[in-house]
Amino acid sequence: MQPRSSSPPPLKRARRTDSPPYTSDTPNGHVHASGSGSGLQQQLQPLSLSILGVEPLDEFIKEIADFVHHMIMTRPDYPTGKVEVEAKIGVLRDRASGQRFALPVLVETILAPGATDTRFESNMSANQHKNFNTLLNNLKTESPNTASSLDYSHLYLKDTFYPMEGNDREKIRVTKNEKTNAVVECMRKIRLGDLNVYSPKREADWRISVNLEIPMSHPVGTSTHSRRKDRMSYAHEEFKIDLTQVTSTMSPNAPQQILHELEIEIARSDFLLATALKRGDPNVSEHERSAFDELIRAFVNNARILVRNSSEGWQ
Amino acid sequence: MQPRSSSPPPLKRARRTDSPPYTSDTPNGHVHASGSGSGLQQQLQPLSLSILGVEPLDEFIKEIADFVHHMIMTRPDYPTGKVEVEAKIGVLRDRASGQRFALPVLVETILAPGATDTRFESNMSANQHKNFNTLLNNLKTESPNTASSLDYSHLYLKDTFYPMEGNDREKIRVTKNEKTNAVVECMRKIRLGDLNVYSPKREADWRISVNLEIPMSHPVGTSTHSRRKDRMSYAHEEFKIDLTQVTSTMSPNAPQQILHELEIEIARSDFLLATALKRGDPNVSEHERSAFDELIRAFVNNARILVRNSSEGWQ
Repeated sequence: MQPRSSSPPPLKRARRTDSPPYTSDTPNGHVHASGSGSGLQQQLQPLSLSILGVEPLDEFIKEIADFVHHMIMTRPDYPTGKVEVEAKIGVLRDRASGQRFALPVLVETILAPGATDTRFESNMSANQHKNFNTLLNNLKTESPNTASSLDYSHLYLKDTFYPMEGNDREKIRVTKNEKTNAVVECMRKIRLGDLNVYSPKREADWRISVNLEIPMSHPVGTSTHSRRKDRMSYAHEEFKIDLTQVTSTMSPNAPQQILHELEIEIARSDFLLATALKRGDPNVSEHERSAFDELIRAFVNNARILVRNSSEGWQ
Repeated sequence: MQPRSSSPPPLKRARRTDSPPYTSDTPNGHVHASGSGSGLQQQLQPLSLSILGVEPLDEFIKEIADFVHHMIMTRPDYPTGKVEVEAKIGVLRDRASGQRFALPVLVETILAPGATDTRFESNMSANQHKNFNTLLNNLKTESPNTASSLDYSHLYLKDTFYPMEGNDREKIRVTKNEKTNAVVECMRKIRLGDLNVYSPKREADWRISVNLEIPMSHPVGTSTHSRRKDRMSYAHEEFKIDLTQVTSTMSPNAPQQILHELEIEIARSDFLLATALKRGDPNVSEHERSAFDELIRAFVNNARILVRNSSEGWQ
C-alpha cells in the first residue's frame, strides 16, 4: 500500500453545465467539426456534456437507487421497523470452487440476483483492516477536501443471539456495551434484499443490503451463540462507516473465529424513508424530489472509494 | 417509441463541489449522524460528493480513455496516418447460437477482449434507423439544452475496394461522391483495436474501435466489391454522427445486402493526437493535461445517449 501522503485525493474533475454556451474562436463557429483544415486548434474549447447538453443518467447508481427504493416501498408493515441500507466490503466467491468469482468484464458491475452461484464473504485480511483504520484516521485528522468533519467513536459491543419462538430461521439479537454491560439494542433483523457488485479491477467486491430492524423486548431463555465486536465507527454527514473486528463463538467449546468487516450505512432510517416517499413526487420541490437519489449517489460514491482503497492509498 | 415531445431531455442533476462547506441547522453540526433523535430533519442538506469531498473516478470512462490512449501511443508509425476513434451502435451476438450475447449483470459493462465468443453486428432495423433520423433531425431543429448547433449534411457515397499487392488481408478503399463521381478519399484502414460494451438494459450494444487510416494513391486493377452509402451526417462540436444505409454488392450476381449503421466518431484526428500527447503531462496546464479525458468523456456520453435511444425517445 502506498503511504497516505504520496497519494493525495484526486482533483475533482471539471463539470460543465450547458451554460455558458459552447463557443468557438472562429466567426462561423464550426471549427470543431471542420477537420484538419486551417491550422490546428490545440485548446479544447469547453465541450457540452453531450449532444443533449446533459450528462446521461448513471445507469449503475440509478439501478441501486431503484432497488433500494423498491425494497423500501414494498417492505413488510412493521410500524416500529427501522430500514437499514448498508454496503459491505468483501469478496464474492464461487460457491463450488471457493475461488473469487469472475466474469469476462473489465469494470465494476452489478450482478443479476440469483443468476450466479456465488456467496458474499464479508471479511478482509487483518492487514487490510489496519490499512483502512490508518486511512480513516488520517482522513479524520486531515479532513482534506471536505469541509464537513468526520466523527469517530470506538465501541466495544457484544451481540448475543436468542431463538425466536415459532420461527426457526430468525433470531433475536441483544447488543450490549461490553464495558458497562448496558443493553444498547434488542432487535430482530429481516433481510429484504441484496445486490452484489463485482469489481474486477479491485481487491474487493461489495454488497448492498436492505434490512428491516424491528425492536423487540429482551428475550428470555438460553442464547444460541454470541460475538464480540471491537468497532471503530466513523460518522460523516448522512453516513456511518464501521470498521469492526468480530470475534464469534458458535458454541462453548468451538474455536473462536475472527472476521474483519467494513461497512457503510445510511445513518438515519427516518430521513431515508422520508426522502424515499418523496422520490419523483411532482407535488414537491425538485430538491425534495431528488433528495433520495442524491443520498444514494453519495452512498455509492463512498462505497466505491472504500472498495478502491482495499489495497492502495486513497484514490 | 415515445413521440419526441412527450419525453423532454432530463434536467442535468445537480453537481455539488466541496464548497460551500457542508452545513447543518443545529449548533453542534452533527444532526446528520445523530440518528432519530430530536425531531426529523426533512431537508437534505447539501451532501459532499463523498467522504473525500470528490467524486470517485468513473471506472468505465477511465477504462475507455486508457484503451484509446494506449492504442494511439502504440500505433504503427505511418506519418500520414489518421487515427479514427468511433463507436458503433449494434448488437453483440454469441457466435455459436447467433442470439444476442448475455451476461448475468444488470448494467452496462465493458467486455474483456478475447474472453467471450462474440461478434459485433453493426446493424439495426429500418425502423430504428428511421427513429434515429427523426430524433437527430428534431435535435437539429430544436437544439434543446445545448447552445452549440448541430450541423447536417446528406451524403451519397460509393466505396469500391481493391486488393492490396502483397497483402491478402487488407484492401484499399476508394470513396467517391456518387453525384459528382469525384474521389473523396482513397485509403487503407488498419484496425488497431476494439472494445465491446454490453448493455443489458437497452435494445443495443456498442463497440469502440480505434483504426489507422492511411491515405493511398488510387489503385489500378480490378475492384473486388463495392457498397453504396446513403448517409445523414450530423456534426456537433468535436464529434460526427453518421446514420448510414449501406447497400453492399459482394459480387456482380449476388443479391444486395442492406445494413443500417449508426456511428459516432471524434471529428479531428490531429486534435485527438495533440490531446493524447499531453495527457497527464505535468509540464502543461491542468486544462491541457485533462483535455484528452474530457474529449473521451463527451464521446462516451454521446454514445450512451444514442444507445439509450435505440428503442425510445431521448432519455
